[in-house]
Amino acid sequence: MTTGARRRMGVEERREQLIAVALDLFSHRSPEDVSIDEIAEAAGISRPLVYHYFPGKQQLYEAALRRAAEELTTRFVEPHEGPLGARLLRVMERFFDFVDEHGPGFSALMRGGPAVGSAGRTGAMIDDVRQAAYEQILAHLDVPRPAARLELVVRSWISLAETTALLWLDGRGVPRAEAVLRAERVPRAELERQLVHDFVALAAVSAAYDEEMAAVVRRMLADEPEDGMFADLVGRLMALPPVRA
Amino acid sequence: MTTGARRRMGVEERREQLIAVALDLFSHRSPEDVSIDEIAEAAGISRPLVYHYFPGKQQLYEAALRRAAEELTTRFVEPHEGPLGARLLRVMERFFDFVDEHGPGFSALMRGGPAVGSAGRTGAMIDDVRQAAYEQILAHLDVPRPAARLELVVRSWISLAETTALLWLDGRGVPRAEAVLRAERVPRAELERQLVHDFVALAAVSAAYDEEMAAVVRRMLADEPEDGMFADLVGRLMALPPVRA
Repeated sequence: MTTGARRRMGVEERREQLIAVALDLFSHRSPEDVSIDEIAEAAGISRPLVYHYFPGKQQLYEAALRRAAEELTTRFVEPHEGPLGARLLRVMERFFDFVDEHGPGFSALMRGGPAVGSAGRTGAMIDDVRQAAYEQILAHLDVPRPAARLELVVRSWISLAETTALLWLDGRGVPRAEAVLRAERVPRAELERQLVHDFVALAAVSAAYDEEMAAVVRRMLADEPEDGMFADLVGRLMALPPVRA
Repeated sequence: MTTGARRRMGVEERREQLIAVALDLFSHRSPEDVSIDEIAEAAGISRPLVYHYFPGKQQLYEAALRRAAEELTTRFVEPHEGPLGARLLRVMERFFDFVDEHGPGFSALMRGGPAVGSAGRTGAMIDDVRQAAYEQILAHLDVPRPAARLELVVRSWISLAETTALLWLDGRGVPRAEAVLRAERVPRAELERQLVHDFVALAAVSAAYDEEMAAVVRRMLADEPEDGMFADLVGRLMALPPVRA
């Protein structure tokens, strides 16, 4: 029985190793450019042995994707302590770390490239990550049952964060087919701060239409220190030129 | 020769009719739920005759999609007259008209459902529509060669508008698998105005980091009337509670 348990462990370990190797390869090049031969070579095993653990590239891709999704979801977890703006900024830093580490794979996946065979299953995994981000934000806002307007703000901001990350990867926000000019990138740290500001700005716009949203925004701002993220934004918005020319 | 020309016209007319019928069916139900038999019946012709004009459902779907993309792109065109906020609001109204008319098809397409066979070609069509929206906005802002920050703001706002429309279609922003409660929808007119406000808010956030963006925002606001869309937003943001508790 001990031997049997050890043997099962060996299988799991090998699967884990293959997933880690595949995730690394799929992260750095578009999935269609990664072959089973390469995965086998990187893992130091034969091609037939890879097929012993995974029926095909699609299954290995999905397993690697599941691993990446779990990892990203973990990075959303942030202690419920201190100002909200600073918490969201730390999550944005970890999100951009992830995007940076898995750049080409993240880009290919989010754009539904041809390598993503089963749009249904991979799409569901992406939706699960979005849902996790959504639930984390609601938990930090302490709103367990959000009204439609708050749900709209949070979910649409999540898509804004995704697009911002993809455009950052592209270099200048140019379509992916064109040259990537990394030198012209907007600095990552600026985008992380900007996304935190975007969140409160979008919430503030929505609050203009709805008393419940206004109460959420007031609560968000109430806990902020004078030198915090949100104070900074409100100060900057207040400094906008007056509308009358 | 006259007869030949007339015959070619007939072929084109029939193709046009099939595209129109297919677009109508694909707009109201998810594409995988629409059969060639239904398309044939709605067009009043036999199933084999449909195959005479289009090799299969995928080709007909793509032709319908191309028609829809052209139609949506046309709706982005707005005269370069009057305040920018009012121009953008009129485009948002036409965008929501389109989304309303093609709801289920728009939703299935943008979520890359399993019916979308060739992710590459349909994805490219979607990107073309986004690019057209992007170029229209730059033309109205009179910035032919945008810096990276402006490009980021415009492109990420376009994705925000897409997500907002999809969530509006879902009813309450609930995941698509759950029940659609149209009664709890945020009113369309509110979302159209909100998206215009979102645009200027996101531009204002970016302007906090960059003098060139600040100049763009100042120009946007300079042309606005006292009772215009942007004045309304700035007034509402100014009315936010002070940050100090």
